[in-house]
Amino acid sequence: MLTRNAAPANHGGLQSGRDVRLACRSGCLDGPTAGLAPGFVQGNLAILPRDWADEFLRFCVANPKPCPLIGIAEPGDSRLPSLGADLDIRTDLGRYRVWRNGELADEPADIRAAWRDDLVSFVIGCSFSFEEPLIAAGIPIRHIARGCNVSMYRTNVPTTPAGRFHGPLVVSMRPLKPADAIAAVQITSRLSAVHGAPVHIGFPEAIGIPDLDRPDFGDAVPMEPGELPVFWACGVTPQAAIAAARPPFAITHAPGRMLVTDLKSAQLAAI
Amino acid sequence: MLTRNAAPANHGGLQSGRDVRLACRSGCLDGPTAGLAPGFVQGNLAILPRDWADEFLRFCVANPKPCPLIGIAEPGDSRLPSLGADLDIRTDLGRYRVWRNGELADEPADIRAAWRDDLVSFVIGCSFSFEEPLIAAGIPIRHIARGCNVSMYRTNVPTTPAGRFHGPLVVSMRPLKPADAIAAVQITSRLSAVHGAPVHIGFPEAIGIPDLDRPDFGDAVPMEPGELPVFWACGVTPQAAIAAARPPFAITHAPGRMLVTDLKSAQLAAI
Repeated sequence: MLTRNAAPANHGGLQSGRDVRLACRSGCLDGPTAGLAPGFVQGNLAILPRDWADEFLRFCVANPKPCPLIGIAEPGDSRLPSLGADLDIRTDLGRYRVWRNGELADEPADIRAAWRDDLVSFVIGCSFSFEEPLIAAGIPIRHIARGCNVSMYRTNVPTTPAGRFHGPLVVSMRPLKPADAIAAVQITSRLSAVHGAPVHIGFPEAIGIPDLDRPDFGDAVPMEPGELPVFWACGVTPQAAIAAARPPFAITHAPGRMLVTDLKSAQLAAI
Repeated sequence: MLTRNAAPANHGGLQSGRDVRLACRSGCLDGPTAGLAPGFVQGNLAILPRDWADEFLRFCVANPKPCPLIGIAEPGDSRLPSLGADLDIRTDLGRYRVWRNGELADEPADIRAAWRDDLVSFVIGCSFSFEEPLIAAGIPIRHIARGCNVSMYRTNVPTTPAGRFHGPLVVSMRPLKPADAIAAVQITSRLSAVHGAPVHIGFPEAIGIPDLDRPDFGDAVPMEPGELPVFWACGVTPQAAIAAARPPFAITHAPGRMLVTDLKSAQLAAI
């Protein structure tokens, strides 16, 4: 469980994906990126050795709701020019997780020292990218209003296995009033590159979540009377799959600390 | 409150809108039309005298979710060729309601004896038209499975008044599993001509419904554990507005006994 972080208000000057990446690169930012660089697509990161990368790619394709791929780097290449002209995947996130044999081994602020020539970087769409159109539609997003991380939970819903990768679906949860939940389904259905429509509404226990106040990742976000808990597939799912597959080495982002790209969220909307 | 009706299984031979209209015209059918003539658009009916019709039209335009207009006849004309080549609005529904000064006065099987040269017929889209694409998507619709009428409720949500017309929003309710509720929002959002997306999910009391087991119109449809009550704006709303406005004379369909048209539901889908 990550510790709580202060509100990102002091990072309000970070208006573009490049601003956020440079702030991370210089060590000035390691908190949640929700609400930063409005309008820019944020992504989850998973980095696997080449001899695990093909199976991981098949896992993503088999599970498009939690793992919508928005970028794949060439093996050994830390650049991803399709997502950011000057992007360096080794330095441009606020915090990383290094995994050894499926166990969390370290949470460094950059991964230059851990980089290897056989590593393949995968960037997966993130629900933070759909929060901006929700807010633009007048739907309040409590974890942004409170300046904390979104609540994320392991479920009892299995992903579709691929090769050695398998494990539970991880979801993020936002408490919404019913009319806002309906509008949120409409808005996020058009955004399949960032998890698309919710996977569940209303009954946490039906998907194996015993207590909303105890998220597996991120912070607890209180429900208010008359609100429904609305659950979206989450890009932390690959971390659960890495923990289950136990590759000898892997790197991911730390939950909530996303790669912020140069893509504009408005470009993702599909009809 | 209408009485329960037997399952429409014995009307399974009614495959087209014209089949249903002819069965009504000959007096063979006065039960709910849900599930009949698959693929054909069904409509709510409201008939007002000409000196009330302009205000009623403004009421419909001001309240497009409960009152999506799909046809308006010329004053005094009982035909509506845009909805059915041989359609006669006076005979082609299974049962009507005649209203005098906002009070229900009669429930005849045809309205030829009540017809006047100053009457204007309005046909309003009906949620039965979206049940077929829901079923096609694998979503069970309990009131069809049980062969009863859908549950309808007066809410505490006011419509937008227009002229002398005002009153509460009436909703229909379908119990759905959460994943089906999400898919139903996606599917019905494309069908604005037949009420579009739901107006509420989850908390009946929040919209002024104290007891789901006591619908104001139609039949009680039991909820099962793990289901959400999903509420759509309903074409019975004009009947509540007629009861509130108290025009000296009006005719509507009886709840659940719809006009079945020659339009195909697939033609209604908007992107």
